[in-house]
Amino acid sequence: MGIINNINKAFDHRVRLGIMSVLMVNEYADFKMLKELLDITDGNLASHAKALEQAGYIVVEKRFIGKKPNTRYKVTSPGRKAFKEHLSALEHLINRSE
Amino acid sequence: MGIINNINKAFDHRVRLGIMSVLMVNEYADFKMLKELLDITDGNLASHAKALEQAGYIVVEKRFIGKKPNTRYKVTSPGRKAFKEHLSALEHLINRSE
Repeated sequence: MGIINNINKAFDHRVRLGIMSVLMVNEYADFKMLKELLDITDGNLASHAKALEQAGYIVVEKRFIGKKPNTRYKVTSPGRKAFKEHLSALEHLINRSE
Repeated sequence: MGIINNINKAFDHRVRLGIMSVLMVNEYADFKMLKELLDITDGNLASHAKALEQAGYIVVEKRFIGKKPNTRYKVTSPGRKAFKEHLSALEHLINRSE
């Protein structure tokens, strides 16, 4: 049982950590908000969000605000649970490094 | 200034986190010890250790124990400093997720 086995590959990238960390404390976050908070390109955000969606950890909602299309994201309960486990695995690794 | 900007790309993979976390609390760790602790393949360990070496964060020592070749790793002081900064950036992200 390796010391990194509990680290979830689906979250194993700083952009994904960032997306999940925002969605853990916001009911929704739209594309623009995530892009600004994370300071990354559209493509980078879209590809990592897609991966989290495919893993079932976030859901994507597309709607119109007035005439403008809006994409927003929300964490799923499996996503919340898996991310908490991922964070405690990271914390465990951090604590053994100090 | 994005919330993930302080996360160091050189450490942004669970195998690299694992290697550094072992080397932060052991003066040396050899290939076999790291491989067992992290429960990963030779190739996986070698490629991530190479990347950390090229970043100047660890040094590799090759020697013989009796007739047997032995490869061991040691964290550098820039590596120790950079990894501490990385860990505090991770902790910051973890804390804002809770």
